[in-house]
Amino acid sequence: MTTATRGPIDPAAHLARLRERAPLIHNITNLVAMNPMANVLLALGASPAMVHAREEAAEFAALADALTVNIGTLSPLWVEAMQEAAEAARLTGRPWVLDPVAVGATAYRRETGRRLLERRPTVIRGNASEILALEQQGSGGRGVDSSDPTEAAEQAAVALARRIDAVVAVTGEVDLVTDGRRLARIPGGHALMPRVTTLGCALTGVVAAFLVGAKDPFAASVAALACYGEAGRRAGEVANGPGSFAVAFLDALYALDHDQLATLPTLEVTDAP
Amino acid sequence: MTTATRGPIDPAAHLARLRERAPLIHNITNLVAMNPMANVLLALGASPAMVHAREEAAEFAALADALTVNIGTLSPLWVEAMQEAAEAARLTGRPWVLDPVAVGATAYRRETGRRLLERRPTVIRGNASEILALEQQGSGGRGVDSSDPTEAAEQAAVALARRIDAVVAVTGEVDLVTDGRRLARIPGGHALMPRVTTLGCALTGVVAAFLVGAKDPFAASVAALACYGEAGRRAGEVANGPGSFAVAFLDALYALDHDQLATLPTLEVTDAP
Amino acid sequence: MTTATRGPIDPAAHLARLRERAPLIHNITNLVAMNPMANVLLALGASPAMVHAREEAAEFAALADALTVNIGTLSPLWVEAMQEAAEAARLTGRPWVLDPVAVGATAYRRETGRRLLERRPTVIRGNASEILALEQQGSGGRGVDSSDPTEAAEQAAVALARRIDAVVAVTGEVDLVTDGRRLARIPGGHALMPRVTTLGCALTGVVAAFLVGAKDPFAASVAALACYGEAGRRAGEVANGPGSFAVAFLDALYALDHDQLATLPTLEVTDAP
Repeated sequence: MTTATRGPIDPAAHLARLRERAPLIHNITNLVAMNPMANVLLALGASPAMVHAREEAAEFAALADALTVNIGTLSPLWVEAMQEAAEAARLTGRPWVLDPVAVGATAYRRETGRRLLERRPTVIRGNASEILALEQQGSGGRGVDSSDPTEAAEQAAVALARRIDAVVAVTGEVDLVTDGRRLARIPGGHALMPRVTTLGCALTGVVAAFLVGAKDPFAASVAALACYGEAGRRAGEVANGPGSFAVAFLDALYALDHDQLATLPTLEVTDAP
Repeated sequence: MTTATRGPIDPAAHLARLRERAPLIHNITNLVAMNPMANVLLALGASPAMVHAREEAAEFAALADALTVNIGTLSPLWVEAMQEAAEAARLTGRPWVLDPVAVGATAYRRETGRRLLERRPTVIRGNASEILALEQQGSGGRGVDSSDPTEAAEQAAVALARRIDAVVAVTGEVDLVTDGRRLARIPGGHALMPRVTTLGCALTGVVAAFLVGAKDPFAASVAALACYGEAGRRAGEVANGPGSFAVAFLDALYALDHDQLATLPTLEVTDAP
Repeated sequence: MTTATRGPIDPAAHLARLRERAPLIHNITNLVAMNPMANVLLALGASPAMVHAREEAAEFAALADALTVNIGTLSPLWVEAMQEAAEAARLTGRPWVLDPVAVGATAYRRETGRRLLERRPTVIRGNASEILALEQQGSGGRGVDSSDPTEAAEQAAVALARRIDAVVAVTGEVDLVTDGRRLARIPGGHALMPRVTTLGCALTGVVAAFLVGAKDPFAASVAALACYGEAGRRAGEVANGPGSFAVAFLDALYALDHDQLATLPTLEVTDAP
């Protein structure tokens, strides 16, 4: 576990590190998210790769700089590959991020989520319904969209972070990150973001990219969400709807620079409740 | 079977119901369509979910408000999941829509299409070549794009609707909907629509979303096609090509409102020939 | 083998043939590329189809005008389908194009690449790292993005073309095409192209579309790359980032015409070293 510094977090410094390293991010993600996730990572300056066959997933995980596992569209062979890749990441000291899409919806998802938690993700990023479901609280939602506000998952997020010694990021209208000891709320984003599919899934890749070379996964996750939210805010200024928002969002991620990030309000870290 | 009213159909009322309910639409669709379909449904105001593992497809179908099954990119386990999800939808009284992509092209597709028809879809939406192939008429086309005009499939559509007691929607330059007793033609759309991949597949999801809570599947299907065509017409006014059309189309679906739909010509329903 | 004419190549004539025929292109491609590849082919004037089940892949390959095989996201059943489709294309005299994505990254990819080479692709299109890996030279790269400049792969490309009697196209900042006897360099493109995912994969489909009805696969490949690069150059003139680039690129492919191509510098063919 890292030192839990409580100083303000500077997203620009984290983004500069990401662009300097152009990390290779291995993603086992859902079939809807594959393309947007790759484009988001490329726009930001990372190098995405999607590799899911059991014949190579673990080998590739040990080659990449970080791994993401997203359970949005499951099937048995993929679930095995997810386990093996997560294990390879863990054994070789690489960060990995779990995205528990709709984890409460079916027995298969609950079981898959439970097994993946055992592989000790560095970060879990989900919406409020998903984080509540992982802690077996709340309705867990029906589909892939959250039926709970972020605040409703605050306690569950802190409990989950403590239970598995991970960072938990809950995204929604307001974003919240905790490592069980610290907590940060990140403003930004735009009302059109939930109207574009898999922007949450793509954010999971962005968190992984920010983790590479970071000393503090909590700070890196906060920085990732701050950059993403700021790009969303900027895209919202020029969008006419979800189609033009998706286009403007990629342009905004690409254009994100130190000056833009310097205008953000300082991200304050508090003690977790 | 519903009462076969022949009065004019008001797309705006159907769209208002969809947005009020934000129905959860379960899609087992092809790998090319997954992302655009999700974006189309989100832009319109529905909540899409893609779930295809046999381990959970039937369970999820009984949880969602409607199901779509699209045979564009087949594989054996998916075909089993399609069967099981369609059966679950049928048994729990949920509407489901079949999209028989390129059903005439190979023996595997013909067989899969035949088996899915046995599960009694509420609506079948295809292009003219696909509807002709389902009725074992015409060439059936070679690929996924129609090689027949809509009118050529009118008789086959009426026969198919009567044979399996379903609504059949044939889309192309002109759209046609029949339940075997009634028939409507829907103008609108734009010449760039066939130049953007899977807009037809995404429409299948839109039809499913309009079916939720509808008393008359025929009227709901007509309303879905009218809204889709109007969004296409509006997108065509600002597009420079298929790339900008796809973007403008999502914006237009999102912006579609009562005033825009009120300007549409009344959709007249006639007796099926 | 075709007559190795060394005269200048006219991309406009090749594009006109493609649009006249609207060839049906069968693609077994990766899950990230499926959608952009279909949109690129539709924008250009071809008809794409994605078919990967063993139950129908060979049957469909013999029905289509050309085949592409892309190893970006592998799994065992897909690898079998790739083999069978490639064999069907070869036996029925259809051109097929191999896209060896990240072929050097894992043992599974190296083995799959080796087996597919045995099926004698008409054209191989890859980045420099991939072509070097196929000839067992260089690092082979870690991920899907090239870690070598195009020039570094020139010798390997010529050797590979001679070894398997195919056309080899190496794409990157400068594109290079060789059939082992002739060599052409194609300028154009834009710095944003590698920031949009799977534009290289989509180009593989474009090469296949240009091969249909072409007497000289080398000239057809050069023409394909020239058209693609010109559309990229034009898109770059109006793009603000990778999001708007992707949109403008589809519009530019759609708008590509004789006049635009006539302004291109003549593509000179030299002897391969």
